[in-house]
Amino acid sequence: MRCFCLLFFALLLASATIALGYKEDPELKQCKHQCEAQKQFGEEKIRTCVQKCEDYVREKQRREHGGGSTTFFEEEDDDLNRRSPIERLRECTKGCDRSKQKERCQSRCQETYEKEKERYEGGGNPVDPEQEYQECRQECRRQSREGGSRRGTSQERCEERCQEQRREREREQPGRREGGGNMYEGREREEEEEERQQQKKQGRENNPYVFEERHFFTGMETQHGRLRILPKFTDRSKLLKGIENYRVAILEAEPQTFIVPNHWDADTLIFVANGRGAVSLMRQERRESFNIKQGDIFRINAGTTAYLINRDSNQKLVLAKLLQPVNTPGQFEAFFGAGGENPESFYTAFSNEILEAAFNTRRDRLQRLFGQQKQGVIIKASEEQVRAMSHHEEGGIWPFGGESKGTFNLYDQRPSHSNEYGQLFEVDSSQFRQLRDLDIAVSLANITQGAMIAPSYNSKSTKITVVVDGEGYFEMACPHISQQQQGAGQRGYEKVSSRLKRGTVVVVPAGHPFVAVASNNQNLQLLCFEVNAYNNEKFTLAGRRNVMNQLEREAKELAFGMPAREVDEIFRNQKEEFFFKGPRQQGGRSDE
Amino acid sequence: MRCFCLLFFALLLASATIALGYKEDPELKQCKHQCEAQKQFGEEKIRTCVQKCEDYVREKQRREHGGGSTTFFEEEDDDLNRRSPIERLRECTKGCDRSKQKERCQSRCQETYEKEKERYEGGGNPVDPEQEYQECRQECRRQSREGGSRRGTSQERCEERCQEQRREREREQPGRREGGGNMYEGREREEEEEERQQQKKQGRENNPYVFEERHFFTGMETQHGRLRILPKFTDRSKLLKGIENYRVAILEAEPQTFIVPNHWDADTLIFVANGRGAVSLMRQERRESFNIKQGDIFRINAGTTAYLINRDSNQKLVLAKLLQPVNTPGQFEAFFGAGGENPESFYTAFSNEILEAAFNTRRDRLQRLFGQQKQGVIIKASEEQVRAMSHHEEGGIWPFGGESKGTFNLYDQRPSHSNEYGQLFEVDSSQFRQLRDLDIAVSLANITQGAMIAPSYNSKSTKITVVVDGEGYFEMACPHISQQQQGAGQRGYEKVSSRLKRGTVVVVPAGHPFVAVASNNQNLQLLCFEVNAYNNEKFTLAGRRNVMNQLEREAKELAFGMPAREVDEIFRNQKEEFFFKGPRQQGGRSDE
Amino acid sequence: MRCFCLLFFALLLASATIALGYKEDPELKQCKHQCEAQKQFGEEKIRTCVQKCEDYVREKQRREHGGGSTTFFEEEDDDLNRRSPIERLRECTKGCDRSKQKERCQSRCQETYEKEKERYEGGGNPVDPEQEYQECRQECRRQSREGGSRRGTSQERCEERCQEQRREREREQPGRREGGGNMYEGREREEEEEERQQQKKQGRENNPYVFEERHFFTGMETQHGRLRILPKFTDRSKLLKGIENYRVAILEAEPQTFIVPNHWDADTLIFVANGRGAVSLMRQERRESFNIKQGDIFRINAGTTAYLINRDSNQKLVLAKLLQPVNTPGQFEAFFGAGGENPESFYTAFSNEILEAAFNTRRDRLQRLFGQQKQGVIIKASEEQVRAMSHHEEGGIWPFGGESKGTFNLYDQRPSHSNEYGQLFEVDSSQFRQLRDLDIAVSLANITQGAMIAPSYNSKSTKITVVVDGEGYFEMACPHISQQQQGAGQRGYEKVSSRLKRGTVVVVPAGHPFVAVASNNQNLQLLCFEVNAYNNEKFTLAGRRNVMNQLEREAKELAFGMPAREVDEIFRNQKEEFFFKGPRQQGGRSDE
Repeated sequence: MRCFCLLFFALLLASATIALGYKEDPELKQCKHQCEAQKQFGEEKIRTCVQKCEDYVREKQRREHGGGSTTFFEEEDDDLNRRSPIERLRECTKGCDRSKQKERCQSRCQETYEKEKERYEGGGNPVDPEQEYQECRQECRRQSREGGSRRGTSQERCEERCQEQRREREREQPGRREGGGNMYEGREREEEEEERQQQKKQGRENNPYVFEERHFFTGMETQHGRLRILPKFTDRSKLLKGIENYRVAILEAEPQTFIVPNHWDADTLIFVANGRGAVSLMRQERRESFNIKQGDIFRINAGTTAYLINRDSNQKLVLAKLLQPVNTPGQFEAFFGAGGENPESFYTAFSNEILEAAFNTRRDRLQRLFGQQKQGVIIKASEEQVRAMSHHEEGGIWPFGGESKGTFNLYDQRPSHSNEYGQLFEVDSSQFRQLRDLDIAVSLANITQGAMIAPSYNSKSTKITVVVDGEGYFEMACPHISQQQQGAGQRGYEKVSSRLKRGTVVVVPAGHPFVAVASNNQNLQLLCFEVNAYNNEKFTLAGRRNVMNQLEREAKELAFGMPAREVDEIFRNQKEEFFFKGPRQQGGRSDE
Repeated sequence: MRCFCLLFFALLLASATIALGYKEDPELKQCKHQCEAQKQFGEEKIRTCVQKCEDYVREKQRREHGGGSTTFFEEEDDDLNRRSPIERLRECTKGCDRSKQKERCQSRCQETYEKEKERYEGGGNPVDPEQEYQECRQECRRQSREGGSRRGTSQERCEERCQEQRREREREQPGRREGGGNMYEGREREEEEEERQQQKKQGRENNPYVFEERHFFTGMETQHGRLRILPKFTDRSKLLKGIENYRVAILEAEPQTFIVPNHWDADTLIFVANGRGAVSLMRQERRESFNIKQGDIFRINAGTTAYLINRDSNQKLVLAKLLQPVNTPGQFEAFFGAGGENPESFYTAFSNEILEAAFNTRRDRLQRLFGQQKQGVIIKASEEQVRAMSHHEEGGIWPFGGESKGTFNLYDQRPSHSNEYGQLFEVDSSQFRQLRDLDIAVSLANITQGAMIAPSYNSKSTKITVVVDGEGYFEMACPHISQQQQGAGQRGYEKVSSRLKRGTVVVVPAGHPFVAVASNNQNLQLLCFEVNAYNNEKFTLAGRRNVMNQLEREAKELAFGMPAREVDEIFRNQKEEFFFKGPRQQGGRSDE
Repeated sequence: MRCFCLLFFALLLASATIALGYKEDPELKQCKHQCEAQKQFGEEKIRTCVQKCEDYVREKQRREHGGGSTTFFEEEDDDLNRRSPIERLRECTKGCDRSKQKERCQSRCQETYEKEKERYEGGGNPVDPEQEYQECRQECRRQSREGGSRRGTSQERCEERCQEQRREREREQPGRREGGGNMYEGREREEEEEERQQQKKQGRENNPYVFEERHFFTGMETQHGRLRILPKFTDRSKLLKGIENYRVAILEAEPQTFIVPNHWDADTLIFVANGRGAVSLMRQERRESFNIKQGDIFRINAGTTAYLINRDSNQKLVLAKLLQPVNTPGQFEAFFGAGGENPESFYTAFSNEILEAAFNTRRDRLQRLFGQQKQGVIIKASEEQVRAMSHHEEGGIWPFGGESKGTFNLYDQRPSHSNEYGQLFEVDSSQFRQLRDLDIAVSLANITQGAMIAPSYNSKSTKITVVVDGEGYFEMACPHISQQQQGAGQRGYEKVSSRLKRGTVVVVPAGHPFVAVASNNQNLQLLCFEVNAYNNEKFTLAGRRNVMNQLEREAKELAFGMPAREVDEIFRNQKEEFFFKGPRQQGGRSDE
């Protein structure tokens, strides 16, 4: 119905878009879009706004192609608070007080202390496995770049050794891992250790909801790109059990590259965070190919062999992926059929006699076929190859997209909320059918610089939020994490908060009030995968639409312990909806 | 169809009920209903029956308002069988026989024995953590009642300390917890300890299916009411893994009280076990309010802000809740937006600058707003306030209820089974749509005093049974619990049984034959939440409809090893269906 | 549609089949069927083929009734590679190098070594718990056969003792269990032990995907048959978590036997692997009975009381069962109502007063009723009894079967793939509705002797494959199991492979390329339960339909690092589809 009446308009829009030929930076386009939302402030304002957009995009392109920050993840400062061996000794010895074999316990503490001190003083610093690992990896990359002949595989092998070393180190220093544990597990009784592990699993560590670059590991990496994967959520905290079967990964591919065909044992939902590419999906009898651009979402089914290209000659292609494994909860694997030595083809796992019979082909020819590829998963493609693989139909110009085409572009949607402080783009299974059996909805909040998103919560969905651009911070009200096991017995809430920057992942469980603020320099863009989407509702806790406004007069009085009139006055002060002026922008307030 | 033909009758019934204005005690009404089922015994019998009903209800009201038993849960006698330290020492020493370090093991046993003896003899009694906890809690309540100024929060804090103490104590005495373990874990090898833990988790403890008052913990409590919560089923036994994501809670609110608005991260199905109240649910754009009365079931969706009142000036409001958490399996939290210090509002978890910006209001005014409420979650409301919040439409007069209204009354149904020995009221998703996505059916068995329910089992559903009134006992045939891990390899069944009284919760897994008997003094009312309801069938094992009657003649002969005729004779002796004369009522038997 | 146009043909087929009166061996029939698929090779070839079929079936029947191999499972040779105590000592001591208490660790190793050596030398051989168990069990059976009076129960009790002994033994020798572990766990730190346990659970043991006879345990056994059950998949490996709630069991019943009525707390899907029987299902109000024969699949719902007969006077009835428990994930129990001492009736778990009241019958008569049956679950029936219970309608003559009838015969289907190298029969929920809520599809691959099935994988389903006849082997490409925890980060694949023989169960996870080869003597028949069937696709990796053929020219070049023309040449050499000439049949190849 709606499709029909919008058909002509859409045709116009589509042709306009096609005419533009995607020359314009998508972010620029979207930035300008947002300027129009400010038209109530007059022409002048819009002109300044557009000017700013263009400046920003120029700066962005200079930054992106100028070599500086070359990854999707922004650099990280190490804010682990490290305790010295002597501090740890004290803590350990104290822990012995409850032990039945106090002396033995204390001597264990001393023993560990001495070893640790040695390492600490010897190296001038305690060995931080993560830091050591990062250094090791950097060395691998340096070697790989210098020694032209030692590309691909050997770099990966090298890094693999780094990872092993880190694992080894972390085994030695179990308390280290999350930056806050106690290295001295001198207490006699194993239950206590178990309990501690338990507590850790149950999320008594401070904040199991935020994931930064250091929490990701490298699934694969070549000179031309890499796949960064977030470990299973339940490896972090038992509190995340409800989203155990979802995984997050970020793929970054350099300009004009090819990602070797492979299939995964996971359904994958993909958001194009940056760049322009093309995707090909192998069905049993045919191939489906379509172009992708920033803002697109598309899906690759479990078991479907797919390959991608970055068809842009300047921009990186960055994809944010949400995976839903089909075999083992929370675990997935990539399977490369095409390939050779690196990526290794799974064909080579079969014995020669099987392969000869299956291909009806002699061994030597098969060895040749599966022995050529040595460059890894992400490889450089020639301009001609890219061109040949780019002649695909455009996928997903709304409202034609979705069903028949492979993609759906979030930015092409009419925002469900929009004012000068931000815009919210949303898509659910009613618009993009491929979301249905995944039970996922996707939204993108673009928060204007300095502005904020209203405190709100989802009734049923857990949000897995990926910062795709900008900086800022968030705050979330959490029932006291230490009491979470008890259920509904909490006596209050604590604030969970963290800085946000590109690449940060935040999990917001259902029912938990959440707010995010953009930095004063740049819009903050939050991509949200909303898991368990069926029948979900968003409730806002301040602003014009506000769940507290629905209370009866008597309920307000009783609940707040003050006259309903006063309660109303406060709850009605904020006239905006969903996006507000941010905390540091506040000039004057209406009640002052 | 059925709805239509019953429409006029229902209208009559409805108007009659409305005319009564709910003055009549619902239990009285239902008791009288049941008398009519005895009309085959003549007018005289009915009159006596009605008389008894009225007496009973008068007695009940006297009891309820007379101060005696003030809680839904009936008092409990402590039937834990405690072993003395010396008995434990013997057991422990015996356990060392298999240990590789026998001597060391034995000396550990001795050590533990001495400590334990000291405590045992010192206190005159072994310290039972549960008993200690109950005493501690009683002291808290006493203090709270006496010191008028130390209400609410401090009582809760006090109880919290009691709980901590209990946890501490139980950590010291791990074998104690379920009243049957072995305190002396002197064996050297940790695997044995682990194994024991495993066994415990796997439910080799005697009876993981029955929950009494001591198994509940207090989620919150004020002078005016309390919420009692059953821990996660899997905390009790791994055997209950299949219902891990269901939780049970009982809310009790004193007359004319208000439960402060809040939302939970769980879908909640509620049965009104006693009293009359009113519920308000906040939707994004409007409020839905309806009255509730005994026998009603209704649902509050996860994330929906709701508040309740007990609108009766004499009766307690008692709600039995089944929760289905949406975030973490088996865990849920309450979120209070309205509130202040107690309940603490989640708004106060946000930083001041965020709140100022979100509400567009100065800090001091916000601090005032969120600083008034100190009385806790359940508070006294004035008569006017109650009246103002009670002018709601009646919800759920069958057959109008269900779909459009918020509630569905079980007692207003035509019972699916009814004779002089009892009545079964049932509702599933075909009648009350809100049950559909929860995959739950609800039933209420009202077993006449002295009578019994037929041995029967559910094909697929697990029943979570809450005793809402009366006393009695149940028996269930369980494959030998110690062999449960093996699967289908059991050599027999053991009887799991327990007394039933108000507040007892019993889990009856699918396929397990179950029977319940009412005491001779009072009807026994069992509320059953039937989880995994889709396509479930009830099979009865004795009485007129009886699965054994369906066997072929030859099958009977072969299965029982005796002539089919004899088998038939016995299986046809019981002429009743579903509710039978109870074991102690048996005067003469037809085969005597 | 298809049903209608095939109606007349089906009628003909049906009547023909009925006319044959099932005298012909189903395997023979199917073998002949397959010969017709070879008609392109001329009449002579078909004749030889049919001749071979008949020879084979004669041989089979001689073998089956000649007393030799009496079980569905073929005999097993013990290919565990046993290490000597001294080898284990070396390994253990080496493991101490990393221990903090090296000396203590080493002395532990020495201790264990001495004990082990004693046992090793004393017995001439190390005690293999499995072997010991098998010997113990054989002794039980021998005793049971000889002592006519000590049938049934006592044999079971005897075996139970054997199992206990094995468990005991395995506790002593934890490393032994899977034939590859390290007995000497001398290292001090418990974490290492835990880690090892963890690793084991996570499937770092060599091959958690193959189950042979020794992995099954005996659920029940009498002279006349037995039920063999595979333990929970997750007891083997955490990698199998995704199929935790499926269980596999094999029932074997001697000719003319009766399986006592019972119900399970699991939905059961059954494939008739051999023989002819009849099934009766008790509904609440009626009985459904139907005959079953080789190739049939049928379902018994959780909670449905059912009994079976083997109505053949010569052949064994062999059923392969896939169970989906409804109570506790991966656990199920059988409930016998009819019965007595053995199988024990669950009625006897109730107290006498309850039973007297429920049956309205005196205690002594009930004791008689539940005291006769002592012969166990599978008992001999007389010819008359079998005849009386066999007069059932035939179930499942396609295309009438499925919906209205209880069974669906796989062999009566048109194969979805068929050539001279094999045939694939498939059924999903669109054809047999009872599969729908189980989310299972069933297929049967009949691989011609010496031939192979194409390398292929399922997009979403995990295949639980049971070898129902023949011998051969399989190979599967697995991401390096040791890296499985990491997700998509693997650098290659390893081959998982094993011999296949009757009774072997293989789990093939989604996405994993798999190939199977039949021995040169006999067709290999693989029954596959495909779990998680909704929207599943099969992808083949060689042969005419081949997912690699869909790649663009440029993608082939880039992926394989060689000219697309050469890639194509190889991938097009195999002209067959799905079933190929096997590796040892290869005479000349087309590219030679």
